[in-house]
Amino acid sequence: MSHPSLSPLLPRLREELFEFLRIPSISARREHKDDTRAAAVWLRDRLERAGMAAEILETPGHPVVLGEWQEAGPEAPTLLIYGHYDVQPAEPLELWTAPPFEPSVRDGRIYARGVADDKGQVFLHVAALEILLSQGPLPVNVIFLAEGEEEIGSPHLLPFVERHRERLAADAVIISDSAMFAEGLPSLLFSLRGLAYTEIRVRGPRSDLHSGAYGGAVPNPATELARILASLHDAGGRIQIPGFYDDVVEWDEETLEGIRTLPFSPEAFREGVGAPGLHGETGWTPLEQLWVRPTCEVNGLLSGYTGEGAKTVLPSEAMAKVSFRLVPDQDPKRVVALLRDHVAQVASPHVSVEVEELHSGHPWRARPGGPFFEAAREALEATFGVEPVLTGEGGSIPIVPEFERILGAPAVLLGFALPGSNMHAPDEWFPEAHLEKGIQTLLSFYTSLRS
Amino acid sequence: MSHPSLSPLLPRLREELFEFLRIPSISARREHKDDTRAAAVWLRDRLERAGMAAEILETPGHPVVLGEWQEAGPEAPTLLIYGHYDVQPAEPLELWTAPPFEPSVRDGRIYARGVADDKGQVFLHVAALEILLSQGPLPVNVIFLAEGEEEIGSPHLLPFVERHRERLAADAVIISDSAMFAEGLPSLLFSLRGLAYTEIRVRGPRSDLHSGAYGGAVPNPATELARILASLHDAGGRIQIPGFYDDVVEWDEETLEGIRTLPFSPEAFREGVGAPGLHGETGWTPLEQLWVRPTCEVNGLLSGYTGEGAKTVLPSEAMAKVSFRLVPDQDPKRVVALLRDHVAQVASPHVSVEVEELHSGHPWRARPGGPFFEAAREALEATFGVEPVLTGEGGSIPIVPEFERILGAPAVLLGFALPGSNMHAPDEWFPEAHLEKGIQTLLSFYTSLRS
Repeated sequence: MSHPSLSPLLPRLREELFEFLRIPSISARREHKDDTRAAAVWLRDRLERAGMAAEILETPGHPVVLGEWQEAGPEAPTLLIYGHYDVQPAEPLELWTAPPFEPSVRDGRIYARGVADDKGQVFLHVAALEILLSQGPLPVNVIFLAEGEEEIGSPHLLPFVERHRERLAADAVIISDSAMFAEGLPSLLFSLRGLAYTEIRVRGPRSDLHSGAYGGAVPNPATELARILASLHDAGGRIQIPGFYDDVVEWDEETLEGIRTLPFSPEAFREGVGAPGLHGETGWTPLEQLWVRPTCEVNGLLSGYTGEGAKTVLPSEAMAKVSFRLVPDQDPKRVVALLRDHVAQVASPHVSVEVEELHSGHPWRARPGGPFFEAAREALEATFGVEPVLTGEGGSIPIVPEFERILGAPAVLLGFALPGSNMHAPDEWFPEAHLEKGIQTLLSFYTSLRS
Repeated sequence: MSHPSLSPLLPRLREELFEFLRIPSISARREHKDDTRAAAVWLRDRLERAGMAAEILETPGHPVVLGEWQEAGPEAPTLLIYGHYDVQPAEPLELWTAPPFEPSVRDGRIYARGVADDKGQVFLHVAALEILLSQGPLPVNVIFLAEGEEEIGSPHLLPFVERHRERLAADAVIISDSAMFAEGLPSLLFSLRGLAYTEIRVRGPRSDLHSGAYGGAVPNPATELARILASLHDAGGRIQIPGFYDDVVEWDEETLEGIRTLPFSPEAFREGVGAPGLHGETGWTPLEQLWVRPTCEVNGLLSGYTGEGAKTVLPSEAMAKVSFRLVPDQDPKRVVALLRDHVAQVASPHVSVEVEELHSGHPWRARPGGPFFEAAREALEATFGVEPVLTGEGGSIPIVPEFERILGAPAVLLGFALPGSNMHAPDEWFPEAHLEKGIQTLLSFYTSLRS
């Protein structure tokens, strides 16, 4: 299925996307609460202008934007398109080449916080739907659901979906919030890792003390935290929390074989991330470490004096943010419980230690095949001229397994970002050319569902 | 030797001290450079008004304030009074009950950054000299030296003392920058620990990465830093850096016996600092751990995301401030070299690690006895009505051993703060009554030197 050139429309679409990106909808920050709502309002208005019935539905946190076009009739399939309009915090700001909320284009890349994850990709769907609805009725019913809390673990989305399960009834869930395997090589996802994100706090003396006057006799919470963190892995990168691997199921040989045949250079990957070396669980390749193996990462550390120069303080507290990526069938609640047991086991009795669960999500494994998966595969091939590959995704979209469970509909994940797009990092970018190619793919996808 | 009551003078002296304390002379912070100089100017002016010849002498950093009164003649002994007019940073500001640079009095304590360490104690000497000089000539020559870089490791004081060694020639060095052993129990110091303060930086990927998309295959610098820090001590609190204890000399039985007879309750000490337990090198009592044993402390930790909520970042860098307190005859340069060797040994080859030396000082051991030490002992007993005890000090005053080496004069350390005075911590305080008692002691001390 071919479509007329999008070229005449692109300048306007690009300007609209930039408008969306300029709204600092950082869901994690209280001070950006109004901005986050402003992004929801922008999106609702945009869906209405595209020809859908759209509204903002409140949750105890940031609201959900819901757009609906149900005129294809009860015989036609219904697609639930899911995305999120919130973004990660932009810190450290000094590492951005240009301001994160002022989109800029350099060397064929659009740079802005959220351009890849996920506002840019949400916008592809809005634009495709607008174009199709301006031409006539769609062959499918469409429900468009964008939440504002994905980056803080979607705390209110699951109850929302459960409460509205009838209104959200669909035959497939379509999500564009990921990357292609490589430039020119589109992909469909076969997995997402789950997540268990915690904060570990160690408390020693009541207040910060002089490290000379007190050091040596008073427990140091930063030292004790380091000992806890060092106990999480063995030298081979294997997680040492007792029971952690109990629920990990083996992957089928076909999937593992598919991973092995992907064009992937560990050395190019290492150069891309700019680390002196790669390091992961012994016995697995980097792609396996990223897609089919669980991991434990320290996401943040804070204690004592961290400014310029030397301050001889014995800190009162030390904090680490520690998160786990999970694979089927690990359960995030169980992993946090195992972490708590382990920390209680290894922590010094001379300090107090607390493990708080900040958020979590289950891992997901795709069910390839079926009409929607095949339609996505064909649309990608039609636009990019290459058959898409099946890939895993190390990140998490916690609602995906929940959608499948509650709605009984398979999820299809086709993403248009590229590897190294700095999602969650400074200088996040999205390929300028994929604004057109993404919309083109989605136009093919939607129209191919005409039965 | 008795003196007329100081009561009529106290309100004015207190107001002058408060004026001094209001100047935020934080030597570690570039933005307080002018404030630090303002404190020097204030002190010079105050010394001149007390009747001394005073001037500001430049260094490559913050200046030295030098006051001189040499009219007792070449036969009379000369005292070098040393102190510092700079203060520690005041962070974390939110833990101060009242603003750190607005002195306040609560429950008999004066609260302000620097009131104990060391502006308040410097001021005791200024006030005592003013009172004595208003009554007639002093029995001793006095050189008053206050530096502005003690809290950043006195980087320019040693060359200053070496350059001015003839002008600074003295028979004793008098320092008030420490605490009494307990309320009502004055003390003279027999030791100071040395210091080696470093910053360890671990670098992994070039920039922060998404911990889902990259976690598991890319080395995590925060995890690697934790492993390095955890390698510094064994479970018994003994430092595991090879060679670290090589130069530690045994203390004499008299000193150790003196420590054992001091009135000290570990449980009261633990309650005072508010920690769940005490923890130090196995086989030594808390006072020994603080005074005669070396230590290694983590003073600060920073990596990745440390704000509210969850950010799934794999950090690019991780930093720890790590310092050592040293005892005779450990050498700070050698300790840093041993640390570097140890870190190179234990660090992962997949990250890059750097150990920077931020500052250092040698340990010091007093030579008790001699006329100045005895005069200080008698003055303390006259004021407080109790014979002073000999105590160690876990903190460092790096210039003390250098003064002794360059000037060939013994140092006498008599301090008027009290334990738990929060030097280097929020809510630093000094007992209100010790403004009078400190001046009284120093009046007795100076006048008793009349031969």
